[in-house]
Amino acid sequence: MIEEIIRRASELVTPTSEEERSVNLITNRVVEVLDKWVKSAGVNATVEVLGSSARSTWLPGQRDIDVFVIMERGEDIRKVVESLSNFLTEVGISWFVRYAQHPYVTLSIDNYEVDVVPCYRINPGEKPITAADRSPLHHRFLSERLTQTQRGDVRLLKQFLKTIGVYGAEIEVEGFSGYLTELLVLYYGSFVEVLKAVEKWRPYKTYITFFDTQKKFKAPLVVIDPVDPHRNAAAAVSLTSMSTFILAAKRFLKKPSLTYFTPGEVNVVLTNVVEIVFPHPQQPPEVVWGKYKRLGKTLYNWITECGFRVFRWGVESDEKSYVKLIYVLDQLSLGHYQLHKGPPVYDDSVHAFVEKYLESEVVGPFVHGSRVYVIKKRRFTEISQCITSRLGGGNYTIHINKYRGRLVSRNPWIT
Amino acid sequence: MIEEIIRRASELVTPTSEEERSVNLITNRVVEVLDKWVKSAGVNATVEVLGSSARSTWLPGQRDIDVFVIMERGEDIRKVVESLSNFLTEVGISWFVRYAQHPYVTLSIDNYEVDVVPCYRINPGEKPITAADRSPLHHRFLSERLTQTQRGDVRLLKQFLKTIGVYGAEIEVEGFSGYLTELLVLYYGSFVEVLKAVEKWRPYKTYITFFDTQKKFKAPLVVIDPVDPHRNAAAAVSLTSMSTFILAAKRFLKKPSLTYFTPGEVNVVLTNVVEIVFPHPQQPPEVVWGKYKRLGKTLYNWITECGFRVFRWGVESDEKSYVKLIYVLDQLSLGHYQLHKGPPVYDDSVHAFVEKYLESEVVGPFVHGSRVYVIKKRRFTEISQCITSRLGGGNYTIHINKYRGRLVSRNPWIT
Repeated sequence: MIEEIIRRASELVTPTSEEERSVNLITNRVVEVLDKWVKSAGVNATVEVLGSSARSTWLPGQRDIDVFVIMERGEDIRKVVESLSNFLTEVGISWFVRYAQHPYVTLSIDNYEVDVVPCYRINPGEKPITAADRSPLHHRFLSERLTQTQRGDVRLLKQFLKTIGVYGAEIEVEGFSGYLTELLVLYYGSFVEVLKAVEKWRPYKTYITFFDTQKKFKAPLVVIDPVDPHRNAAAAVSLTSMSTFILAAKRFLKKPSLTYFTPGEVNVVLTNVVEIVFPHPQQPPEVVWGKYKRLGKTLYNWITECGFRVFRWGVESDEKSYVKLIYVLDQLSLGHYQLHKGPPVYDDSVHAFVEKYLESEVVGPFVHGSRVYVIKKRRFTEISQCITSRLGGGNYTIHINKYRGRLVSRNPWIT
Repeated sequence: MIEEIIRRASELVTPTSEEERSVNLITNRVVEVLDKWVKSAGVNATVEVLGSSARSTWLPGQRDIDVFVIMERGEDIRKVVESLSNFLTEVGISWFVRYAQHPYVTLSIDNYEVDVVPCYRINPGEKPITAADRSPLHHRFLSERLTQTQRGDVRLLKQFLKTIGVYGAEIEVEGFSGYLTELLVLYYGSFVEVLKAVEKWRPYKTYITFFDTQKKFKAPLVVIDPVDPHRNAAAAVSLTSMSTFILAAKRFLKKPSLTYFTPGEVNVVLTNVVEIVFPHPQQPPEVVWGKYKRLGKTLYNWITECGFRVFRWGVESDEKSYVKLIYVLDQLSLGHYQLHKGPPVYDDSVHAFVEKYLESEVVGPFVHGSRVYVIKKRRFTEISQCITSRLGGGNYTIHINKYRGRLVSRNPWIT
């Protein structure tokens, strides 16, 4: 049963030979151009294809190729990027510069995006200068060890994680990076062995290391980076993402299904939902997701303080035109009164509390247990009042009960 | 200021000389009759007037007089009660028998109720046979020590406690008995000194004893009974009653007012209230209050489980025709869905949880933190459905938003 599901899933996650050919073609072409540039510009660097496209662990439909310009120390990243972009313009390839921790160049060729990332050459254990410097080491560690079968297992696992919504280390997902996925297959041996191990994972107790290391990390999941024992390769994985993986592994092993690779239909349940839709601020994704997740958490606290019960909340964005905060609520309006808890009677602050409500239209002040309470008018009885009171008259729209997305749907993969 | 308030309050709580005269008249008459009976029936006992009427610590308008028949061991309570009631019938006084821990006789004379309570003579420290046996010792302890001024202070304190709703050790009130009130005045010296001490009371930390005792009691307030060191004379005082007294003492000392002796007007706030009205079961008050307070607590838990927010609840009764449970709620109806929390993903019970909701119309199952959840249909969205589902089709009526009593009123005494 499970073998049959995995066999069919493998077909789904293996690129066609045609697809593979065109990736290779484009990669070779870019490398050729870059080699020419390195030579002509006299940059002290080598050009290397790294990442999943170099290890045959990429998923069908993926349009990203990573090419690294591994520089010797002494080279200046900004100057190198400038030289490269001038060269590309000369040879007629369209490009744009992006900024992660430092600038890199993206080429757009035949609907593929090729990231050309400059980094410094370091040795294992050596302190990296930029975050990208570890990539050549990562690539070498994996490509020297992963068997052909395991590369197929990496693809299965990536697709599995993608379907259950935890693939990617970016803030949007807070999940498992491609590199981490490959490490897991290498560590446990195969796709199925990964799941069998994950079934027994325990947040904050699972510690994976390829060598003898005892460095402590406070994170739900710790996977010591084999090329840098001071780094937790799973630092981005949130408790929710790790737990989602545990649940999915348990259920898949119990009841294997193709839905873990290609999700079933989405059934929407008509609950009470409020969306706050903002125009996209036209900043980089990591900035936008970070900012709106924080705002979402603040607003969640505020909505709860207003007295509304929030069942679930989240951030969604098309990364172009909008970002929105979504709150699934018990109700959209509340009663006109609320219970307001005061201090214990033996605390001296009880005087101020009582005096505050002496002249108001309240029930009480009365005592229950050792505390004083009043039942007083609510400030906001409508969810929109509560939200507006916090966000003010900014540039956003509130939608009530229009949302039909993931947060109010049946789980599309669980069996 | 405070002296003036207390002076005016003293007038309120002192019976008129006319009232005092008629109490004495009736008391003397009853004692005379009982003395005659004891002699003629050959009962080995003495007749004594105990309680507040014997100590001038009773409140105006009080219609209860306690007369005790203190028997020597060897007498049988049932036979004594039988002999007494026969005698009363002979001399033409109307009577009825009541049952507390054991039977006693109540005489109805000129709109006064005289309780004739048989008990056994014991010495201080001796183990009582019935609960009433301590009363002669209590009376002797107090009457030997309380000064005339202190007796006035007892009346003030009784009225104060009555107004704030914590006077009486019965289950309805769970407050301060008359005996306990007198002990407090004796212990602290005066009405004002009691309040000054109470202001500093701490639930579960206040321990009052007249002698050297170290017996431990687990209760909000411990006042060792001076005639029985194994008894907490404040055992009936609930945390809420003790705390109410603390709050009232603090506020009275801060802002003295006659409202603590004769409450101000009651202002009702129009919140959402549901009442469940039962016909009075025609059982003794202690039984009825105990039963309905327990039922009220059970139903409170159930209503909360249904998803309703209860601000406050209570039991009320006229002790004749009805008993009712009252719940002050945020809302009378809820949304159609609820959040339902499942086990942690690493727990094996997660399988049963997921399987239970695989075919239902739910949001999820989804993971948040380390747990799995669903958003599912609520069983009951109306408060009346929730209540009926628990109480079944019994003999009760549900009233919505008709209640106008204490539980939805401004505090009528606080300043």
